[in-house]
Amino acid sequence: MKKFKQLGLIGCGMMGGSFALALKRAGLVERVVGYNKSPSKTETAKRMGIIDDAAASILQAVMGSDLVLIAVPVSATFDVLKSVQFGLNKEALILDVGSTKQSVIQAAESVFGALPSHFVPSHPIAGKEQAGIEAADADLYVGKRVILTPTELTDSGAIANAIAVWKSLGMSVSQMTSTEHDAVFAAVSHFPHLLAFAYMNGLAGQTEARQFLQMAGPGFKDFTRIAAGDPELWSDIFLANSQEILNQSAAMSLSLKKLEDAMRLGSPQTLKELIATASALRGGWTLSNKSAVDDV
Amino acid sequence: MKKFKQLGLIGCGMMGGSFALALKRAGLVERVVGYNKSPSKTETAKRMGIIDDAAASILQAVMGSDLVLIAVPVSATFDVLKSVQFGLNKEALILDVGSTKQSVIQAAESVFGALPSHFVPSHPIAGKEQAGIEAADADLYVGKRVILTPTELTDSGAIANAIAVWKSLGMSVSQMTSTEHDAVFAAVSHFPHLLAFAYMNGLAGQTEARQFLQMAGPGFKDFTRIAAGDPELWSDIFLANSQEILNQSAAMSLSLKKLEDAMRLGSPQTLKELIATASALRGGWTLSNKSAVDDV
Repeated sequence: MKKFKQLGLIGCGMMGGSFALALKRAGLVERVVGYNKSPSKTETAKRMGIIDDAAASILQAVMGSDLVLIAVPVSATFDVLKSVQFGLNKEALILDVGSTKQSVIQAAESVFGALPSHFVPSHPIAGKEQAGIEAADADLYVGKRVILTPTELTDSGAIANAIAVWKSLGMSVSQMTSTEHDAVFAAVSHFPHLLAFAYMNGLAGQTEARQFLQMAGPGFKDFTRIAAGDPELWSDIFLANSQEILNQSAAMSLSLKKLEDAMRLGSPQTLKELIATASALRGGWTLSNKSAVDDV
Repeated sequence: MKKFKQLGLIGCGMMGGSFALALKRAGLVERVVGYNKSPSKTETAKRMGIIDDAAASILQAVMGSDLVLIAVPVSATFDVLKSVQFGLNKEALILDVGSTKQSVIQAAESVFGALPSHFVPSHPIAGKEQAGIEAADADLYVGKRVILTPTELTDSGAIANAIAVWKSLGMSVSQMTSTEHDAVFAAVSHFPHLLAFAYMNGLAGQTEARQFLQMAGPGFKDFTRIAAGDPELWSDIFLANSQEILNQSAAMSLSLKKLEDAMRLGSPQTLKELIATASALRGGWTLSNKSAVDDV
């Protein structure tokens, strides 16, 4: 497969650092030039051998690169693209790692007028609890799924190259539209996080919260695990995919109201039917190994 | 400690059967007389050596018993007490295993005018996925917590005996009022179940549900584990503790609305603060070994 001369890594964090390590290990890149907003992180990345050169600016990181990875919070995508606008090699393959895809495409459209034909929006479904370059891990992506959301403007050669890159990292590759992507992840990841945060905040506002939590057990533990998520990351995702998440919230609220109405009316039969629907859907579901969507 | 001549076991299911097995193993009861609505279950209990005699009626199970365990769905408590009303030994210690406590006390008050002084309402926090007498397990209660909710009418000797019985099964014993109990369990167990059911039903109503679920991962898996609960059991609990559960739902809905408002207004700062509150409360919580409240 195609080997790259230079990876321009924008964002030297856990996701970007892991990508650089994995690509180097696969022997698919000669040189990595990295940029991070905080220069001390860029220096750490260099000291750790994750990047070969520390760029002083975003522009410098992409100039001369035939592969560019944007690994920053989705809300920073617009500013990143604005900075690289006049330095990008037109033939360079551009990838990102954002957890929402419509917002990334919109940012690119705002900057370039249209999604550049060599930009293949990507969402690798991988992560770990620790953040930062120190947590970079060449195995992060192995055995996980990545979802690509190209548009009709995307170059088919660029898509083929993107698929090859992610596969070389040990990932299985899915494609869908950015609209489908954002709807799916709002439903099974973003909204459950919002709901878990709302539940914890509902408890936090009660004077007896401490007493309640002392009695909480394994059911509570599992239900609220995702409520310990990072405020920065999740604020970003909620804003970037707000409409789909609000749609899921409306669907849940309607279902909750039905359950509550049955409680208020004292209707065991209705309650049992509503619970049976939920229980059957959950009971019939099993985690697919290749669709391992963790918290983001 | 006090040994009992006869346990009258009303309800030969997983909870009641496990109690009888554990009490026998501890050498604290000479004879167990069991009753179950379905006679085949009573026969199975006898064949398994869990009970010594199968009673033909509830009344027959309690006559001559100095210990009575009511191990039926909470909604059946009233009917059970009505049936034993004129056969109970006044000195017999009465225990139950109900997951809600105000409804059990109210049922007793309806039948007897007041909670009998030897009835010590109990909620052993123990359970397993399988139901039925076949799942009875002498170790079910070992290392778990039981919560007693006596009233000012409860005999202090009866409370001491109840504590001794549960401790002899390897449990740690807590006491609180039935009001406190129902508020605590609404907050950390009942309402999370309602919310998990509502979330699953929100998905179930969407045509893309199947596609969504294929992409769901470990975060979804943990968040929805409790949504696979038993419709009969949970319908019962939701009706028996509806007011407290509805209170928790109102608190959550308010918190959810705050998050949604911040999303609609595009306020990252507010969102981050709201998420940080939730994340800090959950991040600072750890499961206490002795307060292991599982699904009920």
